[in-house]
Amino acid sequence: MSATTAPVSTAPIAGAQDPEQALETLTALVRDDLEACNRLIVERMQSPVALIPQLAAHLVAAGGKRIRPLLTLAAARLCGHRGGRHVALAACVEFIHTATLLHDDVVDESALRRGAPSANAVFGNKPSVLVGDFLFARAFQIMVADGSLRVLDILATASATIAEGEVLQLVTQNDTATTEDQYLQVIEGKTAALFAAATEVGAVVADRPQAEAEALREYGRSLGVAFQLVDDALDYSASQAALGKTVGDDFREGKITLPVLLAFNSAGEEEKVFWRRVLEEREQAEGDLEKAIALMQSRGTLEATIERARLYGNRALDALRIFPDGPERRALAGIVEFCIARAR
Amino acid sequence: MSATTAPVSTAPIAGAQDPEQALETLTALVRDDLEACNRLIVERMQSPVALIPQLAAHLVAAGGKRIRPLLTLAAARLCGHRGGRHVALAACVEFIHTATLLHDDVVDESALRRGAPSANAVFGNKPSVLVGDFLFARAFQIMVADGSLRVLDILATASATIAEGEVLQLVTQNDTATTEDQYLQVIEGKTAALFAAATEVGAVVADRPQAEAEALREYGRSLGVAFQLVDDALDYSASQAALGKTVGDDFREGKITLPVLLAFNSAGEEEKVFWRRVLEEREQAEGDLEKAIALMQSRGTLEATIERARLYGNRALDALRIFPDGPERRALAGIVEFCIARAR
Repeated sequence: MSATTAPVSTAPIAGAQDPEQALETLTALVRDDLEACNRLIVERMQSPVALIPQLAAHLVAAGGKRIRPLLTLAAARLCGHRGGRHVALAACVEFIHTATLLHDDVVDESALRRGAPSANAVFGNKPSVLVGDFLFARAFQIMVADGSLRVLDILATASATIAEGEVLQLVTQNDTATTEDQYLQVIEGKTAALFAAATEVGAVVADRPQAEAEALREYGRSLGVAFQLVDDALDYSASQAALGKTVGDDFREGKITLPVLLAFNSAGEEEKVFWRRVLEEREQAEGDLEKAIALMQSRGTLEATIERARLYGNRALDALRIFPDGPERRALAGIVEFCIARAR
Repeated sequence: MSATTAPVSTAPIAGAQDPEQALETLTALVRDDLEACNRLIVERMQSPVALIPQLAAHLVAAGGKRIRPLLTLAAARLCGHRGGRHVALAACVEFIHTATLLHDDVVDESALRRGAPSANAVFGNKPSVLVGDFLFARAFQIMVADGSLRVLDILATASATIAEGEVLQLVTQNDTATTEDQYLQVIEGKTAALFAAATEVGAVVADRPQAEAEALREYGRSLGVAFQLVDDALDYSASQAALGKTVGDDFREGKITLPVLLAFNSAGEEEKVFWRRVLEEREQAEGDLEKAIALMQSRGTLEATIERARLYGNRALDALRIFPDGPERRALAGIVEFCIARAR
């Protein structure tokens, strides 16, 4: 199924908005709910142990786009939900996301997150691990109070899948024999699983038929894959570097992402020696990142990665077709464009 | 309320068994259930990502006494539960416990666990953090399949409380100004919360009145505090050292446990200088552990800690009084004796 063969509503789904504005449009659409969600996040990250809200606030205050809870809020509205349950569940999604960020930064030994010093850099690895655990448990407490076993199932399963994706990423790290299938399994786990759960939960709180829950799940999953593909390309983007953003994090860690994988697989023997040295043996010298970027550019692997993201983006758009046109559907479609437009 | 003022059943509750045998007695009583639980643990720790069961098996195969799932199994039988739900929930309790061990060992930088190299020492910190996350999520998946929101509530709340206790332990580490109340808050969180949840869940699956759930919760909580108090004393025990067991782990990390706290608070100025140097500044030289143990012995703080454990043990025994005498109640009472007898 591709966007061009679908009989109806092609125009309003794809490209109806300025991609740069899409996130603002979505945020404006659910502003009251998002503000309620942000208040709940601050309220529920409290603890008599003061270090917990201090550390959590470091990450929460650092902002972030709140894409995942926004998706829950918009999906619930798309499905006609008029109660307040989606606000609490959007907060759960953000808590689980925040917990994984805290643990990721410990695992990756990251010094920066969203352009600011990471929680582990400021507070140390130990409280980062434990506050991640706290936020994860707190998310489940909020879900229990909501009372839907189906929602609990969706987010517990997503949480297990995220951990599996993260472990697989560790296993494939520094291994140039990683296959595209394994790479896709990693990003389906570490990123797409929570996007899929975030949007599916929107249909579930609205008590909509299974087909709509599945459509929103497919939208979230495909969007998540597209999002991560673009992220993985941006890590080698010269234009990002020109904007003063960090590039090369994945390279320094020897993460096997699609741009690298495609470059390695199309490389001659001499280039393979280079890739093995920098990624497998992690012997990196000045100029190696630039050389890697040049090799990827000459092989067109960054464009190929973005192209792949576009395919997943189209799948996400297709999944929205069963919903009637309206501001929510247009906003969710716009987010697909936004995610891919980041690559420019 | 103390054991001696209660009008009935004093004899069969306290000291009816040889404490050394109590764990074997309990294990024998629920042997079939425990074997089913062990099979379920192995089955549900599987994942297509092979490192997950490998790492989990390292800890699970290393044994451990399975005290927490044993408590769930025995509590459910004490309450007359005859179905199989308690087996799955006992596995959840063990998964949550295993997840916290994995994260604890990363946080404490432990090289040993149960006398064998710890998972983080063998596999590294990164997979230990992530496999802990996986087991935690998997526990919630099993609870969702069980379908009781009340059980989910009990174990989600316990998980949040454990994390709070662990963070508070980090905050008070190396701080000789820590109060006894703070110390108790740490061990109520890091240890007693899961013991309390493990036993309460036994009453909940059996659908027993609230009073029985509360009694089993109080039993588990008090037992957990007693268990941790004894553990904290054993870390400075000369007889443990004579048995070839590791002592001094808490000392090396500067953990403020009750034996240390009591010694510091009763110390003269010169001794306080010693304690501050070894615990706060963590400047430890050869002979310092021996000197610390000698100071604690001269102040009687190890005995005082065990005495405190005995008080909590009596509370645990008292809580069992509302249940009729029988092999389950005797076995659960025996576990209290067992925990305290470890101090000999």
